[in-house]
Amino acid sequence: MSFVMSQASLPVFEIGLNALSAVLEKAEAHAAAKKIDPSVLLNSRLSPDMFALTRQVQIASDQAKNGSARLAGVEAPHYEDNETTIDQLKARIAKTVAYLKTLDPKQIDASADREITFPLGPTNKGHMKGDDYLNHFVLPNFYFHITVAYAILRHCGIDIGKRDFLGGIPIKMT
Amino acid sequence: MSFVMSQASLPVFEIGLNALSAVLEKAEAHAAAKKIDPSVLLNSRLSPDMFALTRQVQIASDQAKNGSARLAGVEAPHYEDNETTIDQLKARIAKTVAYLKTLDPKQIDASADREITFPLGPTNKGHMKGDDYLNHFVLPNFYFHITVAYAILRHCGIDIGKRDFLGGIPIKMT
Repeated sequence: MSFVMSQASLPVFEIGLNALSAVLEKAEAHAAAKKIDPSVLLNSRLSPDMFALTRQVQIASDQAKNGSARLAGVEAPHYEDNETTIDQLKARIAKTVAYLKTLDPKQIDASADREITFPLGPTNKGHMKGDDYLNHFVLPNFYFHITVAYAILRHCGIDIGKRDFLGGIPIKMT
Repeated sequence: MSFVMSQASLPVFEIGLNALSAVLEKAEAHAAAKKIDPSVLLNSRLSPDMFALTRQVQIASDQAKNGSARLAGVEAPHYEDNETTIDQLKARIAKTVAYLKTLDPKQIDASADREITFPLGPTNKGHMKGDDYLNHFVLPNFYFHITVAYAILRHCGIDIGKRDFLGGIPIKMT
């Protein structure tokens, strides 16, 4: 009957990121079949003042990596944000998932009452209790960016559905 | 140091739904200022085969209501999905938040190991452990639909930002 913070974070990020990687792979196949330059997809956005697909993927990766590291009380590696191809974005996602596997779930479980401090824009800092930081900042931000990445590709006509978004979740269907 | 399922669900839904209601209110004010028929916004979608704004809001409400009720082991009320105005959608959201407050958090906390059975489309059923159902089905679906609702409005030019999406989260800024 236990419910711990590591299970509400690490596998959630891993499944969501792997689903995002698979969706990017479908986008790549679509672009090849329709002779679309993949960079058109990577530079697509839902409104002029929202980030394009590449940046949505980078931020989703950062939310998972930095959020989990802060909860575990360790310093996350810095990624350069220099991806310009779908293959490079898939490699970034794989690197993020591999990093998550290096974290100690017990350290994340122990962070519920610890104050987490994190950058908010270039000059401000946010402060939240560990459990609030996971429930009300990292998870909503992570889901925001993977959903927008998915929605950009739906908007561009890629043939993907809700199951592609959910990914490899532990479900039994009858 | 405790982390329980009710805190990863009830306040998450309440904050997310209230944020969605506030975003709809901004959309209403925008429509009035620009003399746009609000039903144009309610019928907007990000791709021809995705649901329009009204349905995104209804599904977000249902995910919160039905997901929480299933975890608490009670029968959720059925809502009619007959909203045609922004005011009616805001009322639907308020009704959903009021319903969430009637649920017993302890029953949700006790559901981690219980198998949850739920409809998947018109004929199939899904089966998941309670903790997996929350982490890998209800939360991703809830966030998917509130993010798409928000993204539809950004796409339509409503002046909203990430803070509107996150809503009234327990954060201290310095």
